[in-house]
Amino acid sequence: MEIIDGKKVAAEIKESIKVEVASLLDQGKKAPHLAAVLVGDDPASHTYVAGKEKACHEVGFISSVYKLPASTKEADLLKVVEFLNNDDEVDGFIVQVPLPKHINETKILEAISPSKDVDGFHPANLGRMVTGLPTFLPATPFGILKLLEYYKIETEGKHCVVLGRSNIVGTPMSLLMSRKAYPGNCTVTICHTKTQNVKEICLTADILIAAVGQPNYVTEDMVKEGAVVIDVGMHRIPDEFKKSGFHLTGDVDFEKVAPKCKAISPVPGGVGPMTIVALIMNTFKAYKKEVY
Amino acid sequence: MEIIDGKKVAAEIKESIKVEVASLLDQGKKAPHLAAVLVGDDPASHTYVAGKEKACHEVGFISSVYKLPASTKEADLLKVVEFLNNDDEVDGFIVQVPLPKHINETKILEAISPSKDVDGFHPANLGRMVTGLPTFLPATPFGILKLLEYYKIETEGKHCVVLGRSNIVGTPMSLLMSRKAYPGNCTVTICHTKTQNVKEICLTADILIAAVGQPNYVTEDMVKEGAVVIDVGMHRIPDEFKKSGFHLTGDVDFEKVAPKCKAISPVPGGVGPMTIVALIMNTFKAYKKEVY
Repeated sequence: MEIIDGKKVAAEIKESIKVEVASLLDQGKKAPHLAAVLVGDDPASHTYVAGKEKACHEVGFISSVYKLPASTKEADLLKVVEFLNNDDEVDGFIVQVPLPKHINETKILEAISPSKDVDGFHPANLGRMVTGLPTFLPATPFGILKLLEYYKIETEGKHCVVLGRSNIVGTPMSLLMSRKAYPGNCTVTICHTKTQNVKEICLTADILIAAVGQPNYVTEDMVKEGAVVIDVGMHRIPDEFKKSGFHLTGDVDFEKVAPKCKAISPVPGGVGPMTIVALIMNTFKAYKKEVY
Repeated sequence: MEIIDGKKVAAEIKESIKVEVASLLDQGKKAPHLAAVLVGDDPASHTYVAGKEKACHEVGFISSVYKLPASTKEADLLKVVEFLNNDDEVDGFIVQVPLPKHINETKILEAISPSKDVDGFHPANLGRMVTGLPTFLPATPFGILKLLEYYKIETEGKHCVVLGRSNIVGTPMSLLMSRKAYPGNCTVTICHTKTQNVKEICLTADILIAAVGQPNYVTEDMVKEGAVVIDVGMHRIPDEFKKSGFHLTGDVDFEKVAPKCKAISPVPGGVGPMTIVALIMNTFKAYKKEVY
């Protein structure tokens, strides 16, 4: 059984980007620049954006954060988006979600120029993913592809079962795993809350991608001997023995499932660290104009 | 066993649109207008565009066709697209594919304004489909949804197997059947040329959608008793007993498969007639500004 070590892969990718950026700077070129727009005081969002800033600094990117009050009007946020769309200094930017309830999230995300949409949430970029055109892939699916690639997981002709059909993980993941490419060329089954025989289906999976949002949902009786398991979940479980008062767990009952697996990604340290790196990779693509 | 009669459903939808258009005209409003751009002399394309014109006339839409020589330069075709994008008289338009080899098809399709892209091929519209936003669905998947709806085929929790992963049929179909809606909420498996045990997988299908492009690919030993089978294929088979010299067949061996089915769409007269109607429905949506 092999541990899919997202922390290690993320560090290696960051190191190689860092080297490339340093060489660009040596040539007198400007550094890539990722901006983030943060509206309101959601603590998880602040933590996440701080993580992005840290990653930018590690690789030598310029990072800027536009912090706006929770009371910001939709029209004013649209003006900020418009400003960033037109700011030649900024290669890519994200508007951190969730946004305050009085702001129409879809409207904001659609206002972002697809050429700077490094989160890959703009319909134009999701559509380019559907048709196989160059695009910014959503961070989590992009990170998972990189993990499969790094560990040389065989995918062609395999049965990949995706648990969950969210717009940002399950659905794009199912598309990517079925496309004619590596990683890909899988027969893909997508399961969700309405699926009736999840256990049976999971047992036929050569590759199982769990993005259900329920701690320890995938148990050992659902996993075939020799399967590859990717755990996208991330849950805080109260834990009196931890200084923080909680420990992290995923959608997979790791302790019991791992022994059956050919390879498995743990939580924490699996998919999580890859997400921010995917954003960094997308920003670098935007900087190099590889998509648009 | 019930025959899914696309010809009948198409006729009923056209009739109801015709009534609605007549009432709009009575109110002094303008008629919806679908334009088509046809480059070169491909006979199948000419036949297809003629079918669109006929359908437009049947429902009271204005129809116009821009016929351009095969030698048309890409830049000139782009100008035509730009003209139609800005022509307030035109609600929706299509550029008939295939285009001559010297023209970049993707570039042309991406130049069409998403708000007039009634073929639903623009990445922005495919992306809106992924996220569940209002959009123009590609004609064939849209037509299939309408058939399932008309025949009140139960889909929630069912296993839908899609054979084929093309951008315009298989892939969008798999997305639509898994989304949280009716028709939808299926557990969906998408199969393609790299799938290893197609027969086994098909045998678990409650709903089987065949878009493989191989005549009589789906045989009776691949279909579960009581399944619903949708045949997207359309092949001309040489036939000396026919005046035309050929007969039409689909991806499904209809004669042998039909007796096992709860419902099945024949070829011809199943999915085919729905495709042009889907285009008419999309044009009406564009006219009513229901998407953008």
